[in-house]
Formats: sequence, C-alpha cells, structure tokens
Amino acid sequence: MGTHEFAIIERLRSRLPAIGDDAAVVDQPGGGALLLCADAAVAGVHADLALVGVDDLGWKAMAASLSDIAAMGGRPAHALVTVSGPLGDVDVDLLFDGLLAAADAYGCEVVGGDLTAGPALVVSVAVTGTVDGPPVLRSGARPGDTLLVTGPLGAAAAGLQLLRAGRLGEAPDLELAHRRPRPRIGEGEAARRAGATAMIDVSDGLASDLFHLAGASGVGVVVEHVPVAVGVARYGDDAESAALGGGEDYELLFTTPDAAAMEDAFAAAGLVVPLRVGRVTADPAERLLGDEPLPLLGWEHVW
Amino acid sequence: MGTHEFAIIERLRSRLPAIGDDAAVVDQPGGGALLLCADAAVAGVHADLALVGVDDLGWKAMAASLSDIAAMGGRPAHALVTVSGPLGDVDVDLLFDGLLAAADAYGCEVVGGDLTAGPALVVSVAVTGTVDGPPVLRSGARPGDTLLVTGPLGAAAAGLQLLRAGRLGEAPDLELAHRRPRPRIGEGEAARRAGATAMIDVSDGLASDLFHLAGASGVGVVVEHVPVAVGVARYGDDAESAALGGGEDYELLFTTPDAAAMEDAFAAAGLVVPLRVGRVTADPAERLLGDEPLPLLGWEHVW
Repeated sequence: MGTHEFAIIERLRSRLPAIGDDAAVVDQPGGGALLLCADAAVAGVHADLALVGVDDLGWKAMAASLSDIAAMGGRPAHALVTVSGPLGDVDVDLLFDGLLAAADAYGCEVVGGDLTAGPALVVSVAVTGTVDGPPVLRSGARPGDTLLVTGPLGAAAAGLQLLRAGRLGEAPDLELAHRRPRPRIGEGEAARRAGATAMIDVSDGLASDLFHLAGASGVGVVVEHVPVAVGVARYGDDAESAALGGGEDYELLFTTPDAAAMEDAFAAAGLVVPLRVGRVTADPAERLLGDEPLPLLGWEHVW
Repeated sequence: MGTHEFAIIERLRSRLPAIGDDAAVVDQPGGGALLLCADAAVAGVHADLALVGVDDLGWKAMAASLSDIAAMGGRPAHALVTVSGPLGDVDVDLLFDGLLAAADAYGCEVVGGDLTAGPALVVSVAVTGTVDGPPVLRSGARPGDTLLVTGPLGAAAAGLQLLRAGRLGEAPDLELAHRRPRPRIGEGEAARRAGATAMIDVSDGLASDLFHLAGASGVGVVVEHVPVAVGVARYGDDAESAALGGGEDYELLFTTPDAAAMEDAFAAAGLVVPLRVGRVTADPAERLLGDEPLPLLGWEHVW
C-alpha cells in the first residue's frame, strides 16, 4: 500500500475515532460487549483465482474476519456476507462452499447479506462476536512484557510462492496455509483468559503488525527470535523475510507479563504452546530485530 | 436481474435458512434482539458516477442498510464499512462525506471496516440495530389487513431519468430522492408500535416488494391505489410504472388490521400519515392491481 492509501487511512482514522483495533468493541443493550469487524476480499488482490479456487477466496474472506474476533480474545457469533461480481462468470455456489466451511468450522452462522452484480468479484464479510470478559486490545502492552506468537510464520507466503512457481503438490501444508488460513479462535480465548495484555492477528506480517501493536501501546519492541514455519526455508526465497513480512498467517501476536504462566495455560488447554519472539521495552521509538532496526516489511490493508 | 441470478439466490436461500427478511434477528447474549443487515453498493450499478457524486454513492450505501433496519421497526446502532476500489482514482474522503452524513442523520456510528485496493469501487455497509419489542417481519400479514406505504413512490426513478436526460436542476426534489434517499427510521418504529403485522422497505419497487411480502406471509394482495410522488407524472415516462417498479424510494410498505388507528398513531407522533394502497386477501396466489394481474416490475438485489 502506497503513501496515498496511508494518507487516506490516516484521514479516515481522524474522522472515525472509534476505529483502531482488530474489532470494534461496543456495548450491547442487554449488557456485555459486542465485537464487530469486517473485511473485504478482492479477487486478484487477496486471492489470485488463477492459482486458488473461488472456494478458497470465500474461505479467506470469512477467515480474515474471524481472525479479527480471535485477536480480541472473542468468539464469533454471526456473519453478514455481501458478494459483488460478474455473477454469470463466478461460481457463487463454490464461493459459498469455502465461505460456509470456514464459518461452520469456527461456530459462526451466516444470517444475511447481499448479492449484486458488479464488474469485479468482491466478498465482504462482517462478523459479530462475544467475549466473556474484557476483550484484549492492541494498546495494553507494558514494558517488561514478553512478546509471543501462537505459531511459526511464513507458511502462507511460502505457499503462495510455490503456487506462483507452478510447483503444485510439493508442500501441501504450505499451500494449505495460503489457501485455507486458520483463525486462532481457541488460542485467542486462551491468551485472554491467561492474562494477555495486548493482542493482534498477524495479517499484514509480523513486522508490520508489531509496529501496530507497539504504536497502539506506546511502547518499544525488541524481536529476539523470528519463528519460521517448517519448510519455508526450503521453499521460500528468504525465510526470515517471509516470516517477518509475509502476512496472512493469521497467527496471533500477543504480550504477557508472565510468559511461563501463559505457556502453562496453553498446555493445560490442550493447545500448542506459543512461541516467544521478543520483549516489550519502555522506549516508544524502539523497534529492534536483535541489534538492528526492525525492517517495516509487510503491507497495510486494515484501518 | 436475470434467471441465472434468481437461481443462485434460490440455492443460497436453501443453504442459509436464517436469511429471508430485511434484516436478520438474532438473540443478544445479554437479552433482547439484535438486528443485522448488510448491503453492497457498486459504482456503475447502484450509482452512475457520471450523474451523481461519489458522496451520493456513500450516502446510498449507508441509507440502503439503514432502511433494512427501519423495515424491522428498529433503530440503527453501529455500522461497519468496507471500501474496495481504485483508491488512487476515487475521492475516498468525499465518499465518506456522504456515508457519514447518512450515518449521522440517523444516529448510527461507524465503528470499523476495511479499505482495500480493487479494480472496481464497491462499498459494503453492515449495520446493527436494536428494537424495544418484537421486530416486524415480512411474514405477518393476514387476510383483511390494509396495505399502507409511508409515502408516494416513483420519485427516485423519475430523478434518475431526469439526470440521465441531462435535465439538471429542473426538479431538485426528484433528483434528491435519487441521490439521497431517506431511510424511514421513525416511520418504521411508529408502525411497529402501532401494531404493524408485516413490513418491508420499497427498495426493489412496490410491485416486487409486494410479491416478497405476500409470498413470505402466504397471502394474496390487491392494490387499489398506487400513490405517485409529486412531479413524477410530469417528468417521468410512465408515472404508474415508475411508482410500481422504480425502486429505491425506501418508503416502507406495511400491513395492519386497523388502518385508522395506524393513521392516528402516525399523526400523533408528528409523522406524515401513511397512504392506503390496498388490502390483504386469503388467496395466496392472488396478486392484483385493481382487476388486473399485478405486473412484476422492479428488480431483485437482496437475498
């Protein structure tokens, strides 16, 4: 995303002060918090239909919004789906195969939406979520906290590289990571319950999303370890860059003052123990990868 | 919309049984009903940017979703907005001028969304709403009920015709009806409180939306009077067709067993008294305009 789009986003932020986390948190009339988020997936931008199926685009559109709920420590409840596109040329049934598979897998019910003709295929998914306690914001990280991530990174980026190179079937796990990313609903809930102080999903890339989290929290970050997914080093051009900047892995990046307790909580819940990637520091300008400046890899697509 | 799109919609309906009213009604965890709806507005389909401003497209995108909340007798609460398009060529600030003007006018807060590059401008708006009693569904009309509409029809269609003919400024009210349709939030709430049995917004056209309401209720309908907006006869080709099939007036069409009490309730609330357009009959196959078959004018864009 170029400077023009950054400028648009900055102006919108100033007009829409409620915006700024993975999902919005609003009061429910009956009490408690309601989470609200929406993402658009565009054919040719978020999924290349020459490489993946339109069912994969449907899955990704749903998964991206579900991941925003996960990043608050919430559970998805209901979804609204709008589809615009050349309806005579798009297999809408197949699109919904993928979309509903993702919704079903994570307990979200599609209750409405809109289907309309248009020149380009755009799938927009809005999701509501609930949370049985205070949601985890991006802004709660404190100096001394440990940075953790729910899994190794770079698989989705490496999978896309493989597909682009026409090397189908060589590494099904990496392909699947690109085609069917998994929102970490259970992991987000476990992190919240075990006292995560800040959380964001890694949709733009570890580096980019670390900038978001650190910026929202007004803290510094030092990355000491970049966990790279299995196979990325073998199939990707530059494993660490894929992990730092690849995006769309939809792992959760979060902070906690007590990493050992967090790891125990994940293990007790039967979840894969999160990986330590670094630490939170007091200098709000500090963005380090070891001793070097953290490169701003990745892209922006969320406001 | 052609038979292909109808077929897609019918298949989706069978896969998504929760869908079928202007807005979905879901239980809130804290008690009460939450209304959820979403609409997509596409440049070139829902608004011709050679004729209207991109701020008008923004207004229409928001107004269409707010109208769905109105048609349930609810009040809008929060909105999520996704914008996809050629961001270097679109005046996104102007788009949001119109979008936020509509949101502000009807007490709806934009709390999140997504902004992404794409080949065509698509604005999708999801809205939540509340209702302090049972929402009014499409399915509650009963034989003997009177059909009412909150205002005369055809203004938006006539306004579009004027703009297409290059006759700018001749009839500002009609132009405005096309460019800035008003969701009838207060009217919908008044109708619900005064005992409306079924309700729908006239987004596709009176005839088309009557078919929807009658079909959902399993009843017949006889239209005895088509209320045509002032100026439509003078500026439109065929005033009754514009009123029956024009769509996008966003008036509310509803039924009640006691039309006089309904009219009194609107008057007491300081609202324009609704207009009687016909009656509900017991024969579920009956669709009459006077003694003739009701022509299925209008278009489908909602599922």
